[in-house]
Amino acid sequence: MAYTAEIIAVGTELLLGNTANTDAQDVSRVLSEYGINVFFHTVVGDNPERLKQAVEIAKTRADIIITTGGLGPTFDDLTKQTLAESFGKKLIFNEDVATQIREIFKSRLRHVKMTENNLRQAELPEGCVIFDNGVGTAPGCAFEAEGKHVLMLPGPPRECRAMLKSCVAPYLQNLSDGEIHSHLIHIFGLGESAVEEKLSDLMLTLTNPTLAPYATEGEVMLRLTAKAGSKEEAEELMAPVMAQVFERLGDIIYGVDTESLEKTVVGLLSERGLTLAAAESCTGGLLSKRLTDVPGASEVFMGAVFAYSSHSKTALLDVPPELMKDNFPVSSEVALAMAHGVRKKLKADIGIGITGIAGPGGDGTGVLPGTVFIALSTKEASYCKSPNLFTDRHRIRVGAASNALDMIRRLLTGLQP
Amino acid sequence: MAYTAEIIAVGTELLLGNTANTDAQDVSRVLSEYGINVFFHTVVGDNPERLKQAVEIAKTRADIIITTGGLGPTFDDLTKQTLAESFGKKLIFNEDVATQIREIFKSRLRHVKMTENNLRQAELPEGCVIFDNGVGTAPGCAFEAEGKHVLMLPGPPRECRAMLKSCVAPYLQNLSDGEIHSHLIHIFGLGESAVEEKLSDLMLTLTNPTLAPYATEGEVMLRLTAKAGSKEEAEELMAPVMAQVFERLGDIIYGVDTESLEKTVVGLLSERGLTLAAAESCTGGLLSKRLTDVPGASEVFMGAVFAYSSHSKTALLDVPPELMKDNFPVSSEVALAMAHGVRKKLKADIGIGITGIAGPGGDGTGVLPGTVFIALSTKEASYCKSPNLFTDRHRIRVGAASNALDMIRRLLTGLQP
Repeated sequence: MAYTAEIIAVGTELLLGNTANTDAQDVSRVLSEYGINVFFHTVVGDNPERLKQAVEIAKTRADIIITTGGLGPTFDDLTKQTLAESFGKKLIFNEDVATQIREIFKSRLRHVKMTENNLRQAELPEGCVIFDNGVGTAPGCAFEAEGKHVLMLPGPPRECRAMLKSCVAPYLQNLSDGEIHSHLIHIFGLGESAVEEKLSDLMLTLTNPTLAPYATEGEVMLRLTAKAGSKEEAEELMAPVMAQVFERLGDIIYGVDTESLEKTVVGLLSERGLTLAAAESCTGGLLSKRLTDVPGASEVFMGAVFAYSSHSKTALLDVPPELMKDNFPVSSEVALAMAHGVRKKLKADIGIGITGIAGPGGDGTGVLPGTVFIALSTKEASYCKSPNLFTDRHRIRVGAASNALDMIRRLLTGLQP
Repeated sequence: MAYTAEIIAVGTELLLGNTANTDAQDVSRVLSEYGINVFFHTVVGDNPERLKQAVEIAKTRADIIITTGGLGPTFDDLTKQTLAESFGKKLIFNEDVATQIREIFKSRLRHVKMTENNLRQAELPEGCVIFDNGVGTAPGCAFEAEGKHVLMLPGPPRECRAMLKSCVAPYLQNLSDGEIHSHLIHIFGLGESAVEEKLSDLMLTLTNPTLAPYATEGEVMLRLTAKAGSKEEAEELMAPVMAQVFERLGDIIYGVDTESLEKTVVGLLSERGLTLAAAESCTGGLLSKRLTDVPGASEVFMGAVFAYSSHSKTALLDVPPELMKDNFPVSSEVALAMAHGVRKKLKADIGIGITGIAGPGGDGTGVLPGTVFIALSTKEASYCKSPNLFTDRHRIRVGAASNALDMIRRLLTGLQP
């Protein structure tokens, strides 16, 4: 049976536009992994009447109702009370949960004063399953009533996300008449519609496993999901489709179940015991920022130079001034000289150089914004590439950094960068 | 009269969790600026029955219904048809809009082939006000029916945001029985609760103008909003409150109606004809990235060096190796040497040096993650600061970069950095 779900986010700050409803996004993603259809999201303020109204509507159109927010200790946190009331349940003080909350204030939150209010979080609907909160103090919970499954999760995104993983996923797994397993396939170098074109027959006809595309900033991902009696059976169902996807897309797949291109690159460098140095112009630190977002990057990433002006390219990277005199600092020669220069300066195994115009204005030499040269330099060889990035400033910068990362990835895996 | 509004976002991708509903956030923020109460957000997929159901519910509880999404040229874009039907209106082909769409495909989108589908975007509800789309091709629109105001906006966030500013704000202004004007006050260096404490009497008691806090990543903003017969009257109402806010918060206010700390810094440098160079360690390019996010930064930002290892600090910035031998590369001396070094190398007026540990691991010397030293160097003087940043890797990096930007801001405005 295919369940339908509605997510009700509770919080006036969402209605004021102070924050985006990322909880609903996180919950939706998990529900869709379990093959549960989400037909509506609702956002309502910290107002018991309107929350009650939203719950009554949700009852008419969903099997599973998941709330986020309103589990805190203050008086406007009314989700548990309101939901319990809507389903004719009492709130009961749970001594075990109270003890846990007291323990948290003795250890993790020892610098915060616990008030009696905090113990309101130990009042839970009768007969509910308790979801431990490993990050904050408010436990979540779930109960069944009137033929519905009702789940309540905390609002702070970090707490909600942790509880989704540790408590909600197993709960949904139990509802499912089989186990759900999935893989996320990461792609760089082809747009969403081109990927869809190559795989449309699989996306449209497959029912188990299913194959669905996701697009994020400049990258495309595919989620392959199977339902089966066990993990092994699910993997068996997915294997031939995974093989087909690899056959059709080939080396533009940079990873399966990985996190990002930068994480893949840091991982490859560290596996191979190689070091990297970067010279950035139009990306202005974005490549370095992305690499150093990865914990542990400092062990393989020796450093970088952000050199926009011709003077700084010479002063910091020993780029010969005559290279920039005749034409301008945006050329494959300059990119290569930057890559060589930074590799030597920082005694790294691989040097990368990026020069280009991110716009919105040109550089006065008639070079169009979006013109970017990316060079790789090693002791043995060097490469240069000029990808098509004629979009806006933000996307030019992100695209240039991603292309640079992908060139390193390809070099390190024995492909043509 | 205080209007109430409901926002209905249309798009299956939102229900799958592929994207967050940032449109609802953007629309909510504008509505709250105009004093309009938003009581519900609803998200529904590209499904005409369920959209119709959501509209019928919204009719019972809102005066203003704003939809986002579903205005595109494909067959699952059904917002206009569904809303027109719900309110008993016909769609009429608008020749002027069709001409505009053809023009866009001849100019801005000349590399894209226009299909007949694109002209479906010229079909609009009878008697509507047309909202021009300055970014994409799908126009938005608004009509009045059954005592409700119905507004339809495009789904892509950039398009939605532009239309909110150019078309929706004036539309709401017309609904208002006075003019609404507001100022956004940007603060750095004090947390949200501390700011609230200093201003709680004003926030709680004022009704016109109103003062409300917003917190974003490491920064706090205050929105001051007044309603009056004219802009002048609104400014008159706001002036004494603005003066009080300045009196109580003083120089931690870095700007009013500005965009960001980095934009303020680039603006100040450019006004004063001064140049900047940066040496980053634990921030790994984040400061440079944020500065170069600002168009035109290249004229005042000479370049930067990202030097994590002691070797790179010496090779690129001439930091004396003995400074790093005795203790470790995280000290005020090293931060100052980095700031001096990069200023001299790049012939800049101001040099900034950041060294620290972003974690999650330590550096093996016992220095705690979150320990950061930030130094400023000019020909005349130098300064060093070690802000309290003991949080997680992401917030340590953002906090260090923001503190560095604020030190430059303070130096450039004659304050103690």
